[in-house]
Order: sequence, then structure tokens, then C-alpha cells
Amino acid sequence: MTDFWNDFPTVKKRLEAVSAEMASTVRSAGFPLAAELARVVESDGKMLRPGFLLLAAEFGKPGRAADLAPLAASIELLHIATLIHDDILDEAPLRRGEPAFHVRNGVKEAVLTGDWLFAQCFRLASAFSTPENARRFALVIGIVCSSEIRQDLDKFRYSKSVREYLRKIAGKTAALFSLAFTLGAVEGGCDPGTVGRLRRTGYDIGMAFQVIDDILDYESTEGIFRKPVGKDISEGLCTLPLIHALERDDGRLAALLENPPFDRPAVDRIVRLIRESGALEASRGIARRYTERALREIEGLPDKPVRLTLRRVTERLLVRAY
Amino acid sequence: MTDFWNDFPTVKKRLEAVSAEMASTVRSAGFPLAAELARVVESDGKMLRPGFLLLAAEFGKPGRAADLAPLAASIELLHIATLIHDDILDEAPLRRGEPAFHVRNGVKEAVLTGDWLFAQCFRLASAFSTPENARRFALVIGIVCSSEIRQDLDKFRYSKSVREYLRKIAGKTAALFSLAFTLGAVEGGCDPGTVGRLRRTGYDIGMAFQVIDDILDYESTEGIFRKPVGKDISEGLCTLPLIHALERDDGRLAALLENPPFDRPAVDRIVRLIRESGALEASRGIARRYTERALREIEGLPDKPVRLTLRRVTERLLVRAY
Repeated sequence: MTDFWNDFPTVKKRLEAVSAEMASTVRSAGFPLAAELARVVESDGKMLRPGFLLLAAEFGKPGRAADLAPLAASIELLHIATLIHDDILDEAPLRRGEPAFHVRNGVKEAVLTGDWLFAQCFRLASAFSTPENARRFALVIGIVCSSEIRQDLDKFRYSKSVREYLRKIAGKTAALFSLAFTLGAVEGGCDPGTVGRLRRTGYDIGMAFQVIDDILDYESTEGIFRKPVGKDISEGLCTLPLIHALERDDGRLAALLENPPFDRPAVDRIVRLIRESGALEASRGIARRYTERALREIEGLPDKPVRLTLRRVTERLLVRAY
Repeated sequence: MTDFWNDFPTVKKRLEAVSAEMASTVRSAGFPLAAELARVVESDGKMLRPGFLLLAAEFGKPGRAADLAPLAASIELLHIATLIHDDILDEAPLRRGEPAFHVRNGVKEAVLTGDWLFAQCFRLASAFSTPENARRFALVIGIVCSSEIRQDLDKFRYSKSVREYLRKIAGKTAALFSLAFTLGAVEGGCDPGTVGRLRRTGYDIGMAFQVIDDILDYESTEGIFRKPVGKDISEGLCTLPLIHALERDDGRLAALLENPPFDRPAVDRIVRLIRESGALEASRGIARRYTERALREIEGLPDKPVRLTLRRVTERLLVRAY
């Protein structure tokens, strides 16, 4: 686990139980690549989704959150499964500073290991949540996959629609954050109003998180969001900064985008144009709007000590980042 | 659907409802590659697993089987998901005589479409079966993935252990047949003794089915099992005929196996040696043993009209094939 949770020792302690659950899932059941998968599972993920799931549960009946380690593990394993498949598809050599799973174990094993992990997630979800939540879990994975496919089909097609972009990241990212909050809230025994509010909180956090991630792709390799600058451009992804830059474009940017794929100098030129256009500030405005919405939802939650923790975690994740 | 079920009009009619359920799953929910996936789903699969699921349910309470179309759909969609991923991994150009999904739509889309299908299977399983059966469903998928990984890791390593081979196909094939029978039996409302007997029937049918499939890889491209001869040898798979042939080998076969990968003439020489060794007859003996066990289990099932149907389907699948 990264040090993201260091200032939140109670959550951190709970997440250690989640990590133990993940490790035991991976190492049990005669899985042939257990040791290799354990390397991934035990690497320094931020554990955002299980952390939020547990925090949401604290708004419910006392003591319930303590039983949710297996369900929290399942949502993090799901995230890891999608990362393993994504890395194959993106031909990514590294993940969290280590050779990606498919590089060490082969593409075939990586596809099957992702599939195996999906199965374990569903096994945990159906064993440790209501049938309705298990169904919800499956539904969201379907949405994430659909959105990833849509994103891939849209590669190197540059739309100027902010709305289309928001719909895409809602499916790709916010749906899973929202699921984590909803599962925690329902299984924690929250009343329906609180479940709804937590679901919306998760959605807004997920939207802000993805917008910030897409901004940072143009900014920096530092901090908790680590990716090489310009990666989205070289992959043909049209994210919010590019959309805002195209809105402001005098024709130079559109011309540069005409001949994909882009070599390194082309990527650098495009990134520079986007930075200079003021598009990053405009995008930051949208991230801020979602963050503020999330913080407003949080203020409306029941007045329990966990509310302050959730606000601080959200600020740490989203406010420091821009 | 193939004409496999033509002689069983009641099952065939039920399977048409299953096909409709599959088609509506694929075409709903805003899936971006719906039309492409519908091509696969609507192609001529044998629908063995959903057929067996429905037959097993007939041993339970009257009328229950009629409600099991969504669950039967989910087990066939699962099978299709694994085929889509397998075809990527095997770089197979064709599936059921048509270009494979990844050939028409790209590897990335094929991986994500398989993932999406897994999610739909779990959604259907958690919506239309008991939590225990949803958990069982996930467990079996995990077993299938583990077995596929184990098979891949063992490529070009030639073991002489029949037992190891049987363990492998139990996970790869029999587990899923057994699951189909178990889900049908439990959801159909069978008593525990009948559930157990149907589970064992499914296991034995699955084992016989896979052994026959592995024999036919050395025999023929005709009939309901269609694969090019010698495919397993060229892929480095060590199946039952090869194991039996190695037991009888005077050293010539072992020598030929020493330098993989094998070109076409090498594959042909190896296949000829295996055929001449009597290994196919020995393998047929094992297939027959599982078939007979399955038929004995069927004879012990409650005396309902479906028992005769199940026996005839089993004989059609397994007895005519060798």
C-alpha cells in the first residue's frame, strides 16, 4: 500500500485486513501463477476503492464495516484485473515501476489471470454481499468494459464534445467509484437517503479523479498520479484538455492532429500547444466543480466522525492535486 | 443452433428461448460492439451446456425448467466468452467457419468483449439463481481459468501421467458440464440425492467429451467435433493419445518430440506414429469408461420421461462419436 492513507490510521488498519484478504484469495485455490500474482497484489496500490467502500460503510450501523474486508478486497481485485488486461492492450512495459504482468508471464497467462481474477471478484461479491449488490457489481463491470471499448473505437477521432467526454469517463471511472460507495453504504446498513448521497459522492469523486488524471497527463510525472507526459495524445485519446484546446484552436492544433500516429516530437508539439491554450485551466475548473459537488454531498451526510475523515481523504486526493 | 437437438424438439424449443435471451443480453445495455457480438452469439453453437442445464432441471419440480432460460443463457455466454479469449490466445483465424472475433474487431476489443461477457454472465447468474449458485458459478470459472493456465505452462512438456491429464481436463471441461447439471438440478428443485447424481453425470459426460475431442484431434476433421488434425501436437499439448503412445514408444516418438516447434511434416510424422501405436484405441477405452459411468448414473435418476431424453442425448453426443 502507498502512504496515501498514512494520515488516516483507522482506515489504514482496516485496509491491511483487506490486503490480507486479497493475498489469501490470490494464494489459495491452487492458482498456478499465485506467486506472480501476489507480486502485483502486494505492490503499492493506493487502495482508493476499498478505502472508500469502508468509509461509506461507517455511515451505517456500528461495527458493520469490520465485516466488509472480503467485499472491499473484491473491488480492489477487480481494479487489478482491469489493470492487467489494460496493460496487455496498451502494450505497457511497466506497472507501478515493475515489469507489467504480461511482460513477466506472457500475454496468454495475463489474459487468463485477469479472467481468473474477475471470477474471484464475483465469488467474493456473491459470497459477501446481497444478491442485489452482486448483480450491481456485475452491471458496473459491464459498463466499465463498454466504456473502454467505446474509448478504443474512438481513438484518433477528435470530438469537441465535453458532454461525450464526461459520459465516457462516467462509465470508465466514476461508475466504479460510485459502486464502491454504494456497496459500502448498502452493506453497512445505511438508510436509503444516505445510500443515495454516498453513491453521488462516489460518482463526483470519480469524475474529478479522472479529469485530474487527464490533466496531469499534460503536466507532470510526479506525485500520486504517475504517467509519462503526452501518453494520451500518442495513444489517440481525446480527453478534456484536448477538447478545450480544440475549442480555442486557430487551426495549428487541428493540423498537427491530422497525421497519426505521432512521433515524440509531434507529441511534444501538440502537448505544448495544448498547454499554451489555457485548456488545462479550463479543465481544472471542471475538476473543481466535481470536487465541490462531492464535498457538498459529504457535508449533507449524517454527522458522524467518519464524515470529517471522508472530507479530508477527498481533499487529499482531489484538492492537493491541482 | 446446430441440428444437434433436432431429434429432441422439446429441448430445441426451450433452447430457442435461451438463444433469444442471449441475443437480447448482447443487444441491450448500450454495448458498442453489439452487432458484432450478435454474429457470434447467433452462429451455430451446439448449445450443449444450456441444453444439459434444462434437462437436469426437468428432474425437479414441474414447470421450473421453463424459468431457467436466463441462467441457461448465462452458461452459454460464459462458454462464448472463453472461446473469444481462447481464439486470441491461440491466434486462431476462424471460429465456426467464420473469421474469429479478434480478427474482425481487433485483439483489444476481443479481450474487452470477453470481459464484458463475463460480467453479463455474472449479472444473469446473480439475478436468476441463488447466491450459492452464483458463487458456484464464479468458482467454476476460476477453475477453468486455472486449468487453462496450467495447460499453457505445461506446453511442450510431455508427461506420461494419465492421472495428471485427467485432472487437467476435469478442470478445463468437466467442471463446466458438471456446473450446468448442478445449476439446473438445484434451480429446478431436485432433492439433494438427485442433485448429486446429476452433478456426477455432468462430470462424466464432460470427461468423456474432452477425451473424445482429444482423440478426434488425431483422427478426423469431420463430424460435430471439427478441428484440423494434429493441432494439439503443433501447439505442444500433451493429451491422452500422446500419453498412451509414449507408454508404448520404442524411442522414435520421444526423439521426434525433442525439437519443438514442429513443422507440418514433423506433425504428420508424430500423428502417424501415435495412430499406429494403438494409443487411440486405448484412449477410446477411457472415453467409453466415462460414458458408461454417465449412463449408469442416468439409469439411477428418478424415473421420469426426461431420463430417456437425457440418455439419448448423451448417447448421441458420446457414443456415435467413437
